[in-house]
Amino acid sequence: MKTKSGIAVHGGAGTILRSSMTTEKENLYRAGLQEALTAGWSLLREGKSSVDAVQTAVTILENNPLFNAGKGSVFNHNGKHSMDASIMEGETLNAGAVAYVSGVKNPVILARKIMDDPEFVFLSGKGAEDFAREMNLRFEDEKYFYDEYRFRQYKEALKENSVQLDHSPSIKEKKFGTVGAVALDSEGNLAAATSTGGMTNTKFGRIGDTPMIGAGTYANNKTCAVSCTGNGEFFIRAVAAYDVSALMEYKNYTLKEAGEYVVNEKLISIDGEGGLIAIDKDGNICMPFNSEGMYRASVSENSEIEISIYK
Amino acid sequence: MKTKSGIAVHGGAGTILRSSMTTEKENLYRAGLQEALTAGWSLLREGKSSVDAVQTAVTILENNPLFNAGKGSVFNHNGKHSMDASIMEGETLNAGAVAYVSGVKNPVILARKIMDDPEFVFLSGKGAEDFAREMNLRFEDEKYFYDEYRFRQYKEALKENSVQLDHSPSIKEKKFGTVGAVALDSEGNLAAATSTGGMTNTKFGRIGDTPMIGAGTYANNKTCAVSCTGNGEFFIRAVAAYDVSALMEYKNYTLKEAGEYVVNEKLISIDGEGGLIAIDKDGNICMPFNSEGMYRASVSENSEIEISIYK
Repeated sequence: MKTKSGIAVHGGAGTILRSSMTTEKENLYRAGLQEALTAGWSLLREGKSSVDAVQTAVTILENNPLFNAGKGSVFNHNGKHSMDASIMEGETLNAGAVAYVSGVKNPVILARKIMDDPEFVFLSGKGAEDFAREMNLRFEDEKYFYDEYRFRQYKEALKENSVQLDHSPSIKEKKFGTVGAVALDSEGNLAAATSTGGMTNTKFGRIGDTPMIGAGTYANNKTCAVSCTGNGEFFIRAVAAYDVSALMEYKNYTLKEAGEYVVNEKLISIDGEGGLIAIDKDGNICMPFNSEGMYRASVSENSEIEISIYK
Repeated sequence: MKTKSGIAVHGGAGTILRSSMTTEKENLYRAGLQEALTAGWSLLREGKSSVDAVQTAVTILENNPLFNAGKGSVFNHNGKHSMDASIMEGETLNAGAVAYVSGVKNPVILARKIMDDPEFVFLSGKGAEDFAREMNLRFEDEKYFYDEYRFRQYKEALKENSVQLDHSPSIKEKKFGTVGAVALDSEGNLAAATSTGGMTNTKFGRIGDTPMIGAGTYANNKTCAVSCTGNGEFFIRAVAAYDVSALMEYKNYTLKEAGEYVVNEKLISIDGEGGLIAIDKDGNICMPFNSEGMYRASVSENSEIEISIYK
């Protein structure tokens, strides 16, 4: 029996102030989400796997300078771009993750190569870059990752000695820069992927939830596939992505109940801010968030294309 | 009401062949476990916190060259020692973790400093070493971490181009070199900590489950505290430490049922090998493993001191 396939993508969550959002900017974000969504959706309709669909969708978001991942990554404290990504497939529970790499054009493709290597799950830093070179992955120079707006933010953050969670012009407008995708294919296999360029002016080799299987990304054919975005420290402590699955498997919650509980009760109880996208083994999709907005889009055999930013 | 306090420690799991274990060696391992256990237990009896008890126990294991953590860390592919550690307290769900640091005498103390900093949960590499320096933590030179036996193993592994999971003389004797502790204090607060020196000849900046909150370490006053040891990739994919807690919270499993399920069903279903130590909010302790042995010890107000290696 063919299952009902579907896909959802996100481009980060946070306090996305309507007042500083122009129609033009909003249209660009919507177009970026739609491009990633429909590319993944086309693959699923052709009978391709969910893991290929989420990898393709996240690659497109990484290549879009609007989103804080890949090309659009923010500057860390040392004026460098350090990127994290992860991917997981629900059939085998195989997973791949990478933290703190620079220069790799598409960290999600590196995470996939790590997943496909039977020896590894989680690689980091220069060593992970060496692995990427052995896999002949594409590297880009600093010019590729340079963005004047983000560089200005970095300089401002340095001056204020503050850590900015994303490419937001001020602390008032707080945005958690992550991209992600979750999908169910016609074989009934679930997959999830997440990627980020981290936080502006971050230091000490900080790793957030994005590359952490169970925190930022999780997929299990028994339950669901999940990709998170938010203040990563809280998502780690809540083991947020896996918790959605555990609530479904052990407490018989529906996807919607599990997602809402994690985002609006568990995370809020420890001051965690952000959201997640999730799809279950029947093709149901939920995209809860407790911040003012979350860039998100979804489509499935059960539902039309939906692209949203605010509640 | 005072709760019944208790503590358990482990020094790694794996195929610990009886044939290559001498009485003298066994006594040294037992003495090392006992020293760590009783130091933590003394603190608990004085009314100190569980987080202080697990930190002290793991520090002692890190300082003991027999165990693969801190001083006893194995050599990675580059002939260096790269260490990971994490700590979590169950009352607040606060957590601290560090991956891929060199030279830091006690990675578990660094993890504690990270936990106590409200901004961070997970730091890595050179940046984490900078943070350790800012915290005035003690560093040691290469001589401190040098061990002739481990250096020989490293040279052998390089020659065979194999990754050795620990300081085992041959692949036949497979050992997962990790140390850890879990404790419950008289205030009813749970805590867990884990530390490792990684795998001999490992490369590509590999990170295992030890510094991953939810995989290698987890604590929650609602349920239990858990520290894992095994082939880390599988513990990450199983979100092993948090899964014990989730089974108790969502499925009303006892600690023993939850620990046994994770180690003997879930991990085995994906070929995961190793074990875990756990203590619940009532002071019950379980130490399941699916490998031939696990260095372990426990004591509580409910039970006498127990020190074991084999089944």
